[in-house]
Amino acid sequence: MKIEIIAIGDELTSGRILNTTSSFAARNLFEAGYEIYAMNTIGDTPSLIGEALKRALSRTDAILVTGGLGTTDDDMTNEAVSKALNRPTMPNLEILSNIRAHLDEITNEPVSQLEKLAWLPSGAEALNPGSRMAGYQLIHEDKPIFFLPGIPSQMRQLLVEQVLPKLATWGQDHRLATYQRVFRIFNLPETEVNRRIATLDLNTDVHIGYYPVFPEVHLSLIVRDKKNNNAKRLFKSSCKAINTVLGDSIYGHDRDSMERIVGKLLRENELTIALAESCTGGLICGKITNSPGSSSYLLGGVVAYSNSLKTDYLDVPATLLESHGAVSREVAEAMAVGVRLRTGSDIGLAVTGIAGPGGGTDEKPVGTIYIAIATSEENWVTKFHFEGDRAQIREITAQSGLDLIRKYLLQKVE
Amino acid sequence: MKIEIIAIGDELTSGRILNTTSSFAARNLFEAGYEIYAMNTIGDTPSLIGEALKRALSRTDAILVTGGLGTTDDDMTNEAVSKALNRPTMPNLEILSNIRAHLDEITNEPVSQLEKLAWLPSGAEALNPGSRMAGYQLIHEDKPIFFLPGIPSQMRQLLVEQVLPKLATWGQDHRLATYQRVFRIFNLPETEVNRRIATLDLNTDVHIGYYPVFPEVHLSLIVRDKKNNNAKRLFKSSCKAINTVLGDSIYGHDRDSMERIVGKLLRENELTIALAESCTGGLICGKITNSPGSSSYLLGGVVAYSNSLKTDYLDVPATLLESHGAVSREVAEAMAVGVRLRTGSDIGLAVTGIAGPGGGTDEKPVGTIYIAIATSEENWVTKFHFEGDRAQIREITAQSGLDLIRKYLLQKVE
Repeated sequence: MKIEIIAIGDELTSGRILNTTSSFAARNLFEAGYEIYAMNTIGDTPSLIGEALKRALSRTDAILVTGGLGTTDDDMTNEAVSKALNRPTMPNLEILSNIRAHLDEITNEPVSQLEKLAWLPSGAEALNPGSRMAGYQLIHEDKPIFFLPGIPSQMRQLLVEQVLPKLATWGQDHRLATYQRVFRIFNLPETEVNRRIATLDLNTDVHIGYYPVFPEVHLSLIVRDKKNNNAKRLFKSSCKAINTVLGDSIYGHDRDSMERIVGKLLRENELTIALAESCTGGLICGKITNSPGSSSYLLGGVVAYSNSLKTDYLDVPATLLESHGAVSREVAEAMAVGVRLRTGSDIGLAVTGIAGPGGGTDEKPVGTIYIAIATSEENWVTKFHFEGDRAQIREITAQSGLDLIRKYLLQKVE
Repeated sequence: MKIEIIAIGDELTSGRILNTTSSFAARNLFEAGYEIYAMNTIGDTPSLIGEALKRALSRTDAILVTGGLGTTDDDMTNEAVSKALNRPTMPNLEILSNIRAHLDEITNEPVSQLEKLAWLPSGAEALNPGSRMAGYQLIHEDKPIFFLPGIPSQMRQLLVEQVLPKLATWGQDHRLATYQRVFRIFNLPETEVNRRIATLDLNTDVHIGYYPVFPEVHLSLIVRDKKNNNAKRLFKSSCKAINTVLGDSIYGHDRDSMERIVGKLLRENELTIALAESCTGGLICGKITNSPGSSSYLLGGVVAYSNSLKTDYLDVPATLLESHGAVSREVAEAMAVGVRLRTGSDIGLAVTGIAGPGGGTDEKPVGTIYIAIATSEENWVTKFHFEGDRAQIREITAQSGLDLIRKYLLQKVE
């Protein structure tokens, strides 16, 4: 079953807003076994909307349209659909009464403007009439067309709760059994990943893709087959082969993130961590605390930009800072030890370096980074030299720090 | 001059990778005065690539294609172009010799695979033949078609340095004078922004768009005219009118970010800041330190997840933590005062709250946040209740903290 995705909005075609909704839709539809024929993005222009809709009707089995359903004057999807498909707009009484019932909660927008939300092309079946941004389904020429709001949170909810279940009743015979996995790889260049995979004699029905997603490389494995058992068997054997050649350079799968994997390992080992960050400026701490429940393994952190904070908060001896400089192996180690002892954590992770664009010298150019790990048994300091702009150097430094912790914890388990 | 953008890659149509290159291209082309007719995203399938290319040739004046130019087996753009436009691939000798000259630096990829990069459809003019990912231009049916690699950094560089200058020589007569500004608004709902703008009697040639970009609202103003003077005059008067009704809810314009604006104000006022973060876990510090030169106004920060860190690093009295709890007005203030005094900064900013999903109580539900500012003259604590998931609550909390600093600094100047 072939599906086309159409995203509508001048904010998208002028490049001001990144189109995340189409990508979310594509991922969910793809994983449900549909084929994404094309994704289109067009402006809030009725003639273009109509043209895109008619073209999609001529070549695909179902259509998903997002955007242009709101109350402001630049929202024109319903008008365009009405004209292109010759379906005059009619008020949806349930949406209308819902809007009227909640008028006093809904701010001081004029009623006429709000009620625009209820006027849908004839034949439209509202997906969630209890809400203001209902979205709707239209069956046209025996093909389902879904219209969803462009606001990511609303669109995502309607797609998952309404569109996917409704679509499933349409295309059962056309769907392929699909197995896919993304292997998330860090610290191994794309060409080396490619070379190692090429040594495997993978079945030609196995589809492999390589995608550098800074600072990682993602390898996608997709196996599709009409017969579920065939697809499943081939998928399993391919996963095993890939794991063999890439080893612990694969830090996770699918939607894993490095910080979530590290958090999981810390929790499993019942260990706590504390951070002393200089050039990453809180980035590592911010990543770790994104995960719910991180307070069980993260005690806290210090962003020590100034030398006096390194001394006061991390007990780095002033003499060490003078003799070696803040960006040095010795200071990195002292920071990690200091934050570990002061917070009472099992592990201390410290980062010091030069993220640029200024601050580099011949001896310590921009990109020079020291990462230190302190534990009760031993301390390690690793020196890196990273390339890129400030944001890239900070990002790859944060990821490298987390990866060092990951590898330390993996070895501990063995 | 109408331009169509075609992005190629299975990683895009399966939704695994967000398409950022098309958006970047659209923004730059739009700002240069071109009209983006449509943006297409299709998979690595030669027949689809050919179809999209031929359709675009039939309806637009220029085409930009990204992706599918690499060395791996799933890169099929050149093959598809060659077939669709009937232009057999030929080796570009400059690229070929460049690859051969650098073989030993380029890893252990097989030579034949690397040389794939040099085989381009006949008539192709390489944009940057000294590099491996050259990109190329093809003039077909008197229309320029640009092919760029899909890797964002390479694509961006070639677009800005090669495509825009080349395009400018083509479509001079068709370009409209374009003035646009995005007003970045925080702490004012979209409907209220819309209501206030509606009170202005803006010229009908002025195009206004509203876009909620969590946690902000962006209002875009676009004025286009064949006559530069007309467009410029109308743009200026519209900006003035918008500023009048929205006031200091507009924190910045275009690609400003809240943290960059706060950094600029701190630098102009020669003031320093230090942070004590609990539920935001380093997010605010990480945002501030993203800006180059932030070390001149940020002394550092403490992520104090545990109570013992609040006592040790921020001098929050243990009795205060016991009597009021870590999430309280009193503790927020003590954290801000503590980090200010300990670091010697002019301003202390502290955040404590419950980001969820766990940890909420009837009295202090998830979303309860206290933000405190301490200065040499006075301290303020503001209580918020935010809705959303953990990531949203953290994000809006970080933004609110920065916005409070912004407003404090703006008043100081007056």
